[in-house]
Amino acid sequence: MAKDKTPRRPQAVTPKGFRDYFGADVTARAQMLAQIAAVYHRYGFDALETSAVETVEALGKFLPDVDRPNEGVFAWQDEDMDWLALRYDLTAPLARVYAQHRNDLPTPYRRYAMGPVWRNEKPGPGRFRQFYQCDADTVGAASVAADAEICAMLADCLEEVGIARGDYVVRVNNRKVLNGVMEVAGVLDPADPARFVQERGIVLRAIDKLDRLGPDGVRALLGEGRRDESGDVTKGAGLADAQAEVVMGFVQARGDSGAATVARLRALVAGSATGMAGVDELETIADLLAAQGYGADRIVIDPSVVRGLGYYTGPVFEAELTFEITDDKGRRQQFGSVAGGGRYDDLVKRFTGQEVPATGVSIGVDRLLAALRAKGRLAATQAAGPVIITVMDRDRMADYQAMAGELRRAGIRAEVYLGNSKQFGNQLKYADKRASPLAVIEGAEEQARGVVQIKDLVLGAQIAAGASLEEWKDRPSQHEVPRAALVDWVRDFLAGRS
Amino acid sequence: MAKDKTPRRPQAVTPKGFRDYFGADVTARAQMLAQIAAVYHRYGFDALETSAVETVEALGKFLPDVDRPNEGVFAWQDEDMDWLALRYDLTAPLARVYAQHRNDLPTPYRRYAMGPVWRNEKPGPGRFRQFYQCDADTVGAASVAADAEICAMLADCLEEVGIARGDYVVRVNNRKVLNGVMEVAGVLDPADPARFVQERGIVLRAIDKLDRLGPDGVRALLGEGRRDESGDVTKGAGLADAQAEVVMGFVQARGDSGAATVARLRALVAGSATGMAGVDELETIADLLAAQGYGADRIVIDPSVVRGLGYYTGPVFEAELTFEITDDKGRRQQFGSVAGGGRYDDLVKRFTGQEVPATGVSIGVDRLLAALRAKGRLAATQAAGPVIITVMDRDRMADYQAMAGELRRAGIRAEVYLGNSKQFGNQLKYADKRASPLAVIEGAEEQARGVVQIKDLVLGAQIAAGASLEEWKDRPSQHEVPRAALVDWVRDFLAGRS
Repeated sequence: MAKDKTPRRPQAVTPKGFRDYFGADVTARAQMLAQIAAVYHRYGFDALETSAVETVEALGKFLPDVDRPNEGVFAWQDEDMDWLALRYDLTAPLARVYAQHRNDLPTPYRRYAMGPVWRNEKPGPGRFRQFYQCDADTVGAASVAADAEICAMLADCLEEVGIARGDYVVRVNNRKVLNGVMEVAGVLDPADPARFVQERGIVLRAIDKLDRLGPDGVRALLGEGRRDESGDVTKGAGLADAQAEVVMGFVQARGDSGAATVARLRALVAGSATGMAGVDELETIADLLAAQGYGADRIVIDPSVVRGLGYYTGPVFEAELTFEITDDKGRRQQFGSVAGGGRYDDLVKRFTGQEVPATGVSIGVDRLLAALRAKGRLAATQAAGPVIITVMDRDRMADYQAMAGELRRAGIRAEVYLGNSKQFGNQLKYADKRASPLAVIEGAEEQARGVVQIKDLVLGAQIAAGASLEEWKDRPSQHEVPRAALVDWVRDFLAGRS
Repeated sequence: MAKDKTPRRPQAVTPKGFRDYFGADVTARAQMLAQIAAVYHRYGFDALETSAVETVEALGKFLPDVDRPNEGVFAWQDEDMDWLALRYDLTAPLARVYAQHRNDLPTPYRRYAMGPVWRNEKPGPGRFRQFYQCDADTVGAASVAADAEICAMLADCLEEVGIARGDYVVRVNNRKVLNGVMEVAGVLDPADPARFVQERGIVLRAIDKLDRLGPDGVRALLGEGRRDESGDVTKGAGLADAQAEVVMGFVQARGDSGAATVARLRALVAGSATGMAGVDELETIADLLAAQGYGADRIVIDPSVVRGLGYYTGPVFEAELTFEITDDKGRRQQFGSVAGGGRYDDLVKRFTGQEVPATGVSIGVDRLLAALRAKGRLAATQAAGPVIITVMDRDRMADYQAMAGELRRAGIRAEVYLGNSKQFGNQLKYADKRASPLAVIEGAEEQARGVVQIKDLVLGAQIAAGASLEEWKDRPSQHEVPRAALVDWVRDFLAGRS
């Protein structure tokens, strides 16, 4: 009976698909966000922070008549029975903000935003339900000069956070060119855009798989379909050979130079007004970037970039890291895409009825951090542990705190050991676990002589764990320093280290 | 019929109780968080970032048998029908993290965390459903040296973000002293803690209202109750006069010095072991802080501090800003509390069954920002607008972008006007709205002569709006500068400004 009354203890777990970030993982991300924000700011973008919660209606991805519209988002009903949801990106909230505040905002409105977004999707290895995005968008600028600027800024951001030139490429394409190709291939009728919607979807997905399937795989998907190694069959778009060849010509149109690519594309879409307009835009973007010194080592025109999102209407771009990393299973592989964006002229129209031209980019900060970590380039941001003032005499806590205070006022990270100080070995184990560079010791004997012992923990790390104080005092990694010289000695020591 | 088919446009609004933050409001908060994080880090605390979403069970404020446990939190059921919720503070997630990872974490575990929290409460003026907290906690340290350290760090944080010494005070009390007083007053029976729970609740709430009601108001609530100006009656605790006098003695025990206060408290709780232990702890904290130079100008013992949260078990503290501000209605008033915390030894026990001593502080960053804004101390963080390169000839966009690029590489915030450039006046209105310091103009005539015109927009702000180019060129606030000297001139100009 007594047992029945004992409440079950709650489980200490993160919800499925969520995780905790500790120490240097947090500070490395904060540093990267600050670096990217500084570039965005220098380009004239202003900060915007919307709340994590939006009305499902404003997010707009979902049908109002669905009983529980939580496909893909985390959603719930508020006290008035309206549906609220966590934002799934930073673009939908921007469209809402611009529509809501457009009379007060400058036009163009150039804003950057950073923060977590949430996706109610099946979690998997490396796939989490909360992750960071860092976006910049220009709303109200129809000129492709705005798109070109975003591409240049994206390249600058990647270099700012430590991706060397040559280790990334920003690839640019244009949805209008793609639509022109669809027209020429006979799967888009400008007079009846609803026709061939299904075929176009298959074509888009096929192009997006070029990296993985190669040209033959894409070609198969354009026609009858494709059987993979496991024997599974993916249905194709059912294009005739002549149609498929037009699409393949597009996918493989990238030439040795931007000019060569543009020339091939122009030949391909001849006859489609939309397509020709798209090629002109690509050419303008390429010219603007070249004039500013952004050459093919940084930004290239690449017709194989399609980007998944349906809302893009013009230029699309993505940044890819070109170096290889070793995955969990020891295989070498390309790191792939870390940022993407494009022009979306219809998002604000949902609210206002008026078309508002907009373009922007979203940097996947968590993927970018993973890339830098895989390349071993995050070492500099690993935070060093604090100097630990050990407690030899619990009645002298105020003296030890005074040491920590002196060190902190000199800008040195320091703390007094606040656990159970009876076992000195525990204090050293603690310092080890904290990656402390130094431990300071002042017992009665040292106090009487006006000195402190300072232990170099990096040198002494292996021996320190578990060793008794007596053994430990004889190590060469220990220094006797006048109490009055504590701060200067530690400062000099740490400066010599870095 | 056609009308019925038109989908209703979504409303561009934030959900009730949520808001957007623009520009300098975002960057000022980011700067404050970075300043506080730097202090926490210097004190040896490590960063932790948990996800916004926790299981309702882990948050633990709510009964598992309630049909919809969303009282106070935003909660929903996931695909497995488990309840998830947005965190309502940063302490509950810390208890979960420590219980989950305790074998891998150092003990004591010293962590700081910052980020938004969400409360599903009735929104009101200045009360939002999402706001920022910035916490530091030491888990696994039983010593009140940990509490003293948190108080000192809180004072350092306030000075770091720009609250001058004298404009704030950290007030410290101890729940054990309060419990001792309750014992002496006969409303707490250590042998049967469940007795008098309701009376103690009323006593606590009464003490918490001392600022607002004064001693007479509190005294009334300890006895029969109190009728306010509107005639409404608040039920009292029903204490006899002798009992109430003990509580009033406690509330007003603050003396001229910490030592005087401690002496009065010791006399009050004589006979209660818990109370005496609490007074000893307060004395130790006061001694530790005094030894480190944190005197009564920064940290005081104040028995009127009770802090609302039920989970505190020992020292409690709060930081109050002591200056007056003018509210929306022009009334002068004290700004009040901006941070609070204390010792909570039972939170981790919920998960593990083992008591884990812990203490920490939470800084209300949004309130602190409001205080600095009210004092006019945020001016320095107001971001200056970008230098605007105007577009005189749309075919020369690349040249204008090159100017912006040169300025940015020199670290100067700059952008080319990307809106409709046909009306030059619009470009100047835009620059004005962006708080731009300078506009750069290079038409065909300037290009031919190898110069640019640079307009001082701060000087010319009033005349610029709506003026035609011709009028505007004659103003003394305009400077003709060789194109090759653009960057140097702008750099020198802005340096002279700051």
